[in-house]
Amino acid sequence: MPDEFHYQRRVEFCETDAACIAHFSAFFQYMEQAEHALLRHLGTSVVAEDETGTISWPRVSASCEYTGAVQFEDVMDIVVKVARLGTTSVTYAFDFLLRNESVATGKLTAVCCRLQHGAPPQSIPIPT
Amino acid sequence: MPDEFHYQRRVEFCETDAACIAHFSAFFQYMEQAEHALLRHLGTSVVAEDETGTISWPRVSASCEYTGAVQFEDVMDIVVKVARLGTTSVTYAFDFLLRNESVATGKLTAVCCRLQHGAPPQSIPIPT
Amino acid sequence: MPDEFHYQRRVEFCETDAACIAHFSAFFQYMEQAEHALLRHLGTSVVAEDETGTISWPRVSASCEYTGAVQFEDVMDIVVKVARLGTTSVTYAFDFLLRNESVATGKLTAVCCRLQHGAPPQSIPIPT
Amino acid sequence: MPDEFHYQRRVEFCETDAACIAHFSAFFQYMEQAEHALLRHLGTSVVAEDETGTISWPRVSASCEYTGAVQFEDVMDIVVKVARLGTTSVTYAFDFLLRNESVATGKLTAVCCRLQHGAPPQSIPIPT
Repeated sequence: MPDEFHYQRRVEFCETDAACIAHFSAFFQYMEQAEHALLRHLGTSVVAEDETGTISWPRVSASCEYTGAVQFEDVMDIVVKVARLGTTSVTYAFDFLLRNESVATGKLTAVCCRLQHGAPPQSIPIPT
Repeated sequence: MPDEFHYQRRVEFCETDAACIAHFSAFFQYMEQAEHALLRHLGTSVVAEDETGTISWPRVSASCEYTGAVQFEDVMDIVVKVARLGTTSVTYAFDFLLRNESVATGKLTAVCCRLQHGAPPQSIPIPT
Repeated sequence: MPDEFHYQRRVEFCETDAACIAHFSAFFQYMEQAEHALLRHLGTSVVAEDETGTISWPRVSASCEYTGAVQFEDVMDIVVKVARLGTTSVTYAFDFLLRNESVATGKLTAVCCRLQHGAPPQSIPIPT
Repeated sequence: MPDEFHYQRRVEFCETDAACIAHFSAFFQYMEQAEHALLRHLGTSVVAEDETGTISWPRVSASCEYTGAVQFEDVMDIVVKVARLGTTSVTYAFDFLLRNESVATGKLTAVCCRLQHGAPPQSIPIPT
């Protein structure tokens, strides 16, 4: 796991709103996409199979603080760090940079769970 | 099945774009939501279970012609008609009205399919 | 302003993801839609005009804690309260109930701003 | 203008639905993103400014035929061609390929318009 991971993301037109900026909810999709890119970089996926079924990462917490705004075709540099790695959960911290200035910061906490059809997700220790 | 079904839909802020109108792709979500409201009105759902598994309606075709635009908080009256009812497929026709003027028309064709895990959807006769 | 405001919201199919639940980012759109419904109930809008231009409410903070999940066609009761009313900003608190059980709670802080073309939004006292 | 333009696009998790495939409406966002990538490749943008104001491209027609489906993390090769270039409008044709097999084809027609605040878009000859 690198200390930090960088993910480039261009703001798409359908993500802008009538205030001519990316909608605040889009940043949560950006966080997830950066997380998934990190997992691909590490050779895994947010949805993985092992011999006993499917492992996935339901979210328990998500937050974002906005200090700026981004517009159509702006390219952000999203910096991802692991803020906390627990036994069954991980918290990612994100910094959204536009032209080297932070426009937002966010956090996402996900729990490692075994998914079984017809039952609620059950948290399990993160595979190592 | 009524001759036509009416579905009221307000344009939400996150559906607008930097041109200050509902994004053209939102109309396809509106069509689907009007279809689902019609199916609920008929006492069924787009995802139904029978004794042998799950039945759903993958889309094979979707189109929309735009003659106007709608903005945040506009309330549309979406008129749904069954344009064609085949043995295994149905085509819905939609008219999007704002203050009694058509701003768009669309079509959506879906095929009745049995879904089985690990296999492609298989078209089946529409249950009656 | 009522002590609390209730907003009913059905989970639409396009808001679900491959885990068969509403995507976590959808809850931020639900919060905003509940806020806008409250503002309409109060006879105003999130985008208002006064004699000197446009007033709007950029977000400075958004967060959500998830304790459950919702599926296609689930109807949530979203309870909105004003958690804090400052001079220039307001914080809303949301509780998402499904069959009277909380599945998520969230907060959204927005700043009252005057929007001027070509300039950054400027915070102003909330009109009374 | 090249005869055809290729745009790679990975299916993101938030674009999938409870049928575990990319939602049919996402293909219209993919088309637009491929169009915008083509315009950037040509050194322009879908929202351009000239000396007399803003020029943009409202959509008058959009359609998609689906012959397959794509899942989370699938990478599509989207082939864009100009199907028709008129005086004021352009029609793009799209082919969505997954592992060299077509899963969908689409069309998008846009009209070159001058945008003026408070007036409907006015179609103009495409700048050359």
